[in-house]
Amino acid sequence: MNDTLPSWNDTPTRQAILAFIQAVSDPGSAHFVSPVERIATFDNDGTLWLEKPLYIQLQHGLHAIGKMAAEKPDVRDRQPFKAVYERDMAWLGKVAEDFARGDLGGVMTLASGFAEAFDGMAVAAFEADVLQFLSHAQDARFQKPYKLLTYQPMVELIHALQDNSFQVYITTGGGRDFVRTVCEEIYRIPRSMVIGSSVMFRYGEDAEGIAQVLRTKEFEQPIDDGPGKPVHIHRAVGRRPIMAVGNSDGDIHMLKYATGHPGLTLGLLVHHDDAAREYAYDDGAEKALQLAAREEWLVISMKNDWKTVFLSTTPQEGEHVT
Amino acid sequence: MNDTLPSWNDTPTRQAILAFIQAVSDPGSAHFVSPVERIATFDNDGTLWLEKPLYIQLQHGLHAIGKMAAEKPDVRDRQPFKAVYERDMAWLGKVAEDFARGDLGGVMTLASGFAEAFDGMAVAAFEADVLQFLSHAQDARFQKPYKLLTYQPMVELIHALQDNSFQVYITTGGGRDFVRTVCEEIYRIPRSMVIGSSVMFRYGEDAEGIAQVLRTKEFEQPIDDGPGKPVHIHRAVGRRPIMAVGNSDGDIHMLKYATGHPGLTLGLLVHHDDAAREYAYDDGAEKALQLAAREEWLVISMKNDWKTVFLSTTPQEGEHVT
Repeated sequence: MNDTLPSWNDTPTRQAILAFIQAVSDPGSAHFVSPVERIATFDNDGTLWLEKPLYIQLQHGLHAIGKMAAEKPDVRDRQPFKAVYERDMAWLGKVAEDFARGDLGGVMTLASGFAEAFDGMAVAAFEADVLQFLSHAQDARFQKPYKLLTYQPMVELIHALQDNSFQVYITTGGGRDFVRTVCEEIYRIPRSMVIGSSVMFRYGEDAEGIAQVLRTKEFEQPIDDGPGKPVHIHRAVGRRPIMAVGNSDGDIHMLKYATGHPGLTLGLLVHHDDAAREYAYDDGAEKALQLAAREEWLVISMKNDWKTVFLSTTPQEGEHVT
Repeated sequence: MNDTLPSWNDTPTRQAILAFIQAVSDPGSAHFVSPVERIATFDNDGTLWLEKPLYIQLQHGLHAIGKMAAEKPDVRDRQPFKAVYERDMAWLGKVAEDFARGDLGGVMTLASGFAEAFDGMAVAAFEADVLQFLSHAQDARFQKPYKLLTYQPMVELIHALQDNSFQVYITTGGGRDFVRTVCEEIYRIPRSMVIGSSVMFRYGEDAEGIAQVLRTKEFEQPIDDGPGKPVHIHRAVGRRPIMAVGNSDGDIHMLKYATGHPGLTLGLLVHHDDAAREYAYDDGAEKALQLAAREEWLVISMKNDWKTVFLSTTPQEGEHVT
């Protein structure tokens, strides 16, 4: 497997990952796992693409909230519409600051505003709006469309797993339908294999009587984070993963669920230690990093294990898995 | 495709189904649909296996409720535990009677008792209990284990679709995890492709600190029936089906969702008109049967279209899709 994971330095981390894939995929191996059980789950924000200075989905949410506040004066007297409409940087800065400290209160207020802005929209229209955003809106620091701020080494890891008959799922704490707009073109992961948080939906019919699934503004419970991740994985997959990949304390329960059972398993934790090429922070990941040694999860050093960070090939919009 | 669907009589229904599969699968066809969009969704009770005199899952539920009432005297003063413990045939008969008229009140009381009986159980233990029941408990009329009361022609239809790169999902109004215990051995459908109603779950750890997903007694909303079916399909699949198969009014919304959009689509409705070999009833399917002509859904006559009704080969317990 010398050609596998070309954007990884040939460190012990890379070697351990390749050894694991080999051990569970080789029918002659003592650790062989049948393809039906060969399940890997990946967190999304901070694991597959960047999550700073704010989750990419929140950047999209700010656009939607601003648009709604511009069109509907009656929402401007309450948050988050008020702050976005008035460009109240103190309020927004505090959300970002609280977020960095692990306090999600402000983020949830933004998420509620975001859900409200898309309330009643058919899923296809929502997807078109998201895809437009991810393909064209640019990150301020890197001056690139958001979807290109995906980690190239992780795309290679997913493809290496798929090439060895792994069933690879994305399980995002953020919006499932947000990630589904690009999962096929970036990762060759079908939409059905993206798990995540979501609003509730309702059935409706359009003017011609055509059946539609419409968004509501209520959040589905539980959120796909922390103890909610194994619950979402059970619901969508019906089996325990044998491998899980995360980067934050919200991934601890998923990592324990994937690695805490008989047979060879692999837990990976992406460590953001590369201020030059991406960001360096432990905020929100302190407990996970601390548990890693005891639980035998491998810590990926972005700085030392990765030759390149961001996507080096441009995915074709609308490219499908076949 | 002369060898396809061998348990079907060569009626216009069989021919129309084969023509549809051919038209969407042949790259040279004007109606070609790419594999990623080639999605079919099947209802379960009454569509894939028998649902009379009561849903098979309710037969399992009666066992569990009886066991709980035997072990815990304090539940015997309330329904459904009281009726099951006292073998109150009047109360149970009324549930079956109401059910036949489309009134699900009694059935929901039974379902709640069933959820309560398994409250706190780890999913693997629940699955083992269900598989034991489906493999060994027998239907009173047919004197066969319940899992063998699957319709052979429908298994053949699912395999024909899979052989033509369809992604085939089961979407049951009943319990998703109940059906997942046998979906692989009977249909070669992976557990992840079974959608359905469910209780909520919670994360827990056992005495050794091993992470577990545990059942609760609360129902997840919405139930995967009626307008809830397209919602569940969106959540699990992320795309509209191009084919849907049902047998009752609870399948109308799914059939409208699958057939009400551009491109070639197929809606199928199983009509129970075979009192000699199975049952003959329109109860609970009156509206669907009435809509079929207007919506151009094909009605499958169990009596005329099927050479055999029940499974002719015995699936191997624990047989996996590969």
